[in-house]
Amino acid sequence: MAAKLGILAGGGPLPGYLVEACRANGREVFVIAFEGQADPDVIGDTPHAWVRLGAAGEALDRLRNAGVSEIVMAGPVRRPTLRELRPDRRAAKFLGLGLLNKGDDGLLGAIVHALEEEEGFRVVGASDVLNDLAAPAGPFGQFRPDAEVEADIAHGVRVLQATGPLDIGQAVVVQQGIVLGLEAAEGTYALLERCGPLRREGRGGVMVKLHKPGQETRADMPSIGPDTVAAACASGLAGIAVGAGATLVLDRDRLTATADAEGLFVTGIRPDDYVEGYDQA
Amino acid sequence: MAAKLGILAGGGPLPGYLVEACRANGREVFVIAFEGQADPDVIGDTPHAWVRLGAAGEALDRLRNAGVSEIVMAGPVRRPTLRELRPDRRAAKFLGLGLLNKGDDGLLGAIVHALEEEEGFRVVGASDVLNDLAAPAGPFGQFRPDAEVEADIAHGVRVLQATGPLDIGQAVVVQQGIVLGLEAAEGTYALLERCGPLRREGRGGVMVKLHKPGQETRADMPSIGPDTVAAACASGLAGIAVGAGATLVLDRDRLTATADAEGLFVTGIRPDDYVEGYDQA
Repeated sequence: MAAKLGILAGGGPLPGYLVEACRANGREVFVIAFEGQADPDVIGDTPHAWVRLGAAGEALDRLRNAGVSEIVMAGPVRRPTLRELRPDRRAAKFLGLGLLNKGDDGLLGAIVHALEEEEGFRVVGASDVLNDLAAPAGPFGQFRPDAEVEADIAHGVRVLQATGPLDIGQAVVVQQGIVLGLEAAEGTYALLERCGPLRREGRGGVMVKLHKPGQETRADMPSIGPDTVAAACASGLAGIAVGAGATLVLDRDRLTATADAEGLFVTGIRPDDYVEGYDQA
Repeated sequence: MAAKLGILAGGGPLPGYLVEACRANGREVFVIAFEGQADPDVIGDTPHAWVRLGAAGEALDRLRNAGVSEIVMAGPVRRPTLRELRPDRRAAKFLGLGLLNKGDDGLLGAIVHALEEEEGFRVVGASDVLNDLAAPAGPFGQFRPDAEVEADIAHGVRVLQATGPLDIGQAVVVQQGIVLGLEAAEGTYALLERCGPLRREGRGGVMVKLHKPGQETRADMPSIGPDTVAAACASGLAGIAVGAGATLVLDRDRLTATADAEGLFVTGIRPDDYVEGYDQA
């Protein structure tokens, strides 16, 4: 029996999938639900505590009291400013205040490091807990990108390669060589929504969502689920390309059924096949 | 008396400012108003012809018949796909179809080149026609960025330097080190609007709007006007930074009055002061 799992829960459905997977395996869990981030409906009646994002001391005490030794971070955290965060002494020491300006990756990498080296927990990635959830290479369903869309995917990979080191976002929407939208603080759903009216007449339109070059994927692995496909469909896109092996695919059966029913492709790509040295960028 | 000026009019108020400036100097004008792009209220009763964006042959004939020898391109053009464009034979030859996938800059550069080298017109920039309209260096009004905002401006310049060569957009909104939004196909107003709800608690927030490194500014110089300041104010930003000498400032008196009344700064910056070699990127 695997050790009790501590789930640091941000937004979206991912924490719920982790709880489900643990239950199916008889593994115990304890959830730290971050206030203003985690979804109460997703947390449900799982053993949990609501904690302010800046209250690291309280979160760590709760995890230790619950007997947790292994931790997973799950779901997007709307990044707070320093004032919103109001870090307690533990959080402040823990993060080093200067890190706050390094962007998500610097911050998350520092948290993972501190949890392991200073606090003695083991940090695992969501894909280590959820079996068969990393995106495979190639099309998931019956549709696949045509040559024109492949060119748009390549452009999307180039955009994400250039913007990755700046820590802006994980997703871009491209149609016929035109960047319709680039994700920043608004998140993937809002990106898809606002790109609907920006679509040009004619074919195509693809969302490319990738980990940033060199990203700490244990802390913030990109994910898609059936709702992502529905949003892409509502915006008139032809499909979605994600990083093979580096993207969490939630509820793949339903996701694939949705894509097939709507005529969208969803495909796992290797960024290096499109742009040389993506992960060395 | 300067030669009759041909204005290729895209959206926004800029074509109107050009017409006004010519009238004030007694200079004759003829406007090619692009269908679905130019604003009929801005064109008004100025001598003009409505022309499809892809109908280059008709536009050139109209300009010659009107006795135009000098041309200015003014106002953003919502970039069409090839299908929407339906280029006539002249437009197709003129552009070289392959250029359509090179993005705005490649396309606009090719248009300027073809108008001058093949069609025998002289192409001037809007700032050559409008006196005193290029942004000066330093604050326009009574407010100026503080040290924290200066750091956000620097981050914005870095983002635009990295994304410039990809031809995505001219503007970015940064607050406390976080990129709230990056302009792509939606345009500056829509960017400002959507960044309002993404603002974090606390101070600051700045829009940085710059020409792309190496951009053909005769065709698509960045511009701001009083409405830009009002939109930035509505989104709760502290101010706007634009490229000194490389941004059109429309109606600067009203713009400055609006900024002063609302407590916003508007300042002209030299990108090289923030990021080395911006224009060589």
